[in-house]
Amino acid sequence: MSAAAPLPQVGDPVESIDTPALVIDLDAMERNLATMAAFARSHGVRLRPHAKMHKSATIARLQREAGAVGVCVQKTSEAEALAAAGVDDIYISNEVIDPAKLARVAVLAKRIRLAIAVDSSEGIERLARAVAAAGSTIDVFVEVDVGQGRCGCPAAAAGQLAQHVVSHAPPEGGLRFAGVQAYHGSAQHLRGDDERAAASQHAASLARAAQASIGAAGIACLLVTGAGTGTFAFDVASGIWDELQVGSYLFMDRDYADNVAAPNAPRFEHALFVKSRVMSRGAGHAVVDAGHKSHAIDSGLPRVWQRELAYVSCSDEHGVLRPHADASRASLPALGETVWLVPGHCDPTVNLHDRYVVVRGGLSGGVVEDVWQIEARGCIS
Amino acid sequence: MSAAAPLPQVGDPVESIDTPALVIDLDAMERNLATMAAFARSHGVRLRPHAKMHKSATIARLQREAGAVGVCVQKTSEAEALAAAGVDDIYISNEVIDPAKLARVAVLAKRIRLAIAVDSSEGIERLARAVAAAGSTIDVFVEVDVGQGRCGCPAAAAGQLAQHVVSHAPPEGGLRFAGVQAYHGSAQHLRGDDERAAASQHAASLARAAQASIGAAGIACLLVTGAGTGTFAFDVASGIWDELQVGSYLFMDRDYADNVAAPNAPRFEHALFVKSRVMSRGAGHAVVDAGHKSHAIDSGLPRVWQRELAYVSCSDEHGVLRPHADASRASLPALGETVWLVPGHCDPTVNLHDRYVVVRGGLSGGVVEDVWQIEARGCIS
Repeated sequence: MSAAAPLPQVGDPVESIDTPALVIDLDAMERNLATMAAFARSHGVRLRPHAKMHKSATIARLQREAGAVGVCVQKTSEAEALAAAGVDDIYISNEVIDPAKLARVAVLAKRIRLAIAVDSSEGIERLARAVAAAGSTIDVFVEVDVGQGRCGCPAAAAGQLAQHVVSHAPPEGGLRFAGVQAYHGSAQHLRGDDERAAASQHAASLARAAQASIGAAGIACLLVTGAGTGTFAFDVASGIWDELQVGSYLFMDRDYADNVAAPNAPRFEHALFVKSRVMSRGAGHAVVDAGHKSHAIDSGLPRVWQRELAYVSCSDEHGVLRPHADASRASLPALGETVWLVPGHCDPTVNLHDRYVVVRGGLSGGVVEDVWQIEARGCIS
Repeated sequence: MSAAAPLPQVGDPVESIDTPALVIDLDAMERNLATMAAFARSHGVRLRPHAKMHKSATIARLQREAGAVGVCVQKTSEAEALAAAGVDDIYISNEVIDPAKLARVAVLAKRIRLAIAVDSSEGIERLARAVAAAGSTIDVFVEVDVGQGRCGCPAAAAGQLAQHVVSHAPPEGGLRFAGVQAYHGSAQHLRGDDERAAASQHAASLARAAQASIGAAGIACLLVTGAGTGTFAFDVASGIWDELQVGSYLFMDRDYADNVAAPNAPRFEHALFVKSRVMSRGAGHAVVDAGHKSHAIDSGLPRVWQRELAYVSCSDEHGVLRPHADASRASLPALGETVWLVPGHCDPTVNLHDRYVVVRGGLSGGVVEDVWQIEARGCIS
């Protein structure tokens, strides 16, 4: 859309990247990628990272190459966009209810290995009709509310829904029961490691109850899938989860970095930044050209990277910086100077951008290694 | 990007629009358009609506046809995208500092009538060099901080900066001094009409001081431009502003509707909605498929339109609805039911979408009249 804005070229110095820009520190991202892959391998759990976070087929491919079994998405149009870009194993870890959209899901299931979540009999019936009409088959997870209070059935109802799914099993139907979706979103962002541990234990007990309900219905529960960057180490320790849907570990935003780390969890580095530039200077503040059309603020303001500066207020296209309380005014950046921001929340930040500028060799002195399209940017339906 | 998602077709019933979708109630928008145009005409002020809000060349054209002299934008890439789509009179009401970007500004100034804001000598020098290199001319407004504490010079410095601009006047230079940029963003959102009146009076006194400073430098201040949907009636009453940069009046978001209206200001209707659908039902809540990747929440959560429901919590792809305290559970919508949301803040909501679905005949029972591309969506640089 940005008709005349020049695209960064491979080999360009970082300094020449136009602002605001969404920049990946590739060295840091590769370390995060390897760390999580090693954790999953060593703990014997499957890794199915959440592509709702990065929305990129290139990153999905890198995750697969590092051992992931596939990716998750939240939306039908995300699945379609990533499938069109070559991703061939996708789990829509969310409910789809509209018949017209379910028809698209069913058609997509003919082209790639596709899974989906359900949490109601009505949803199962509609899905069954759609795949029957398309002549496709799809893996189906029963979503259980494990503490979030959002989607998902009560644990005790999991067996009944699983039975309903199984009633549409191949060869007559197209629904393959695949297990339990057990994700507790808000638990990821509890600051204290003790709070997250408690939420994970609570979620584990509900997932266990769901397994029991399914077992009592005479059905094998193949897989419990869920977990996020905030709780995965606790979740794995419980022994309940077979598959991890972690997403943010790859980029680490300010909000996740503010969590008190779990004692035995691996550490991740900031790998996603918004490059901004000072466009105005006041007596005691500087204004950068990156507001909340450049980085999402639903989880709070961004952190200024490696400067004695705080990003104190944000509007659509501006951010106001002030020196830290203990820093002198001399630390204010000059007009035109580059300031790197660590976004408050990576998922919706990524969704604001058409592409990643991928940098090798660090933010200072590095060069552009590649530009990756964000194929599923804006795929909200 | 959403490869397989079907685009609405002209004549489709509203009910068939895929969700989430950004929908314009065209009848309401046209009334808002006419109301503001009539207000400006009757008060003898110019109207230059802010296209940072709608980012659409089609809407810019409708505003011109209703009497606007042109539009404002905040970003160089917005100006480029709208110019590429036929908009030929644009004011970048913001500072640009990067020489590479200023070179683009200077080139664009050869193709359309272009204006820009400055608030520093360094910025003026850089701009002057860029237009000299391109051989173009550009209108230049000196931005004065009229209370926001963000960009803009002190009122007393306006004369000196105006002199600096004039030193690069044609025919030797390419900078045409055009007047004062006086916009107080945060004043727009003060809830009480008395608070907004006071902020507008304060801004007016600073704009007047800037005029005096420019006059004392022997320079005619042609135009004071600024004002927003929250303060324009007060601003016009002060007699200081010659040109209104109002944007949100066209769509009216929840945040502006929550303001206590000024006694003599015209009223505007909600004309921008996010169509959502219930994807999950709990015992006491419903979950819709529109989270903050569909509507921006920097100014608070959306309002549910004409239902006894509150949108009580928001995540990336989900929104949780509960009945109003005084409503019964029976008011909860069923699985699959449509729920219309009034976004908290229209500008960043629009920036999340690739297109408007434009509806005639109301949200209930109407039909799709058109689909408008949002040409400057994502143009943040």
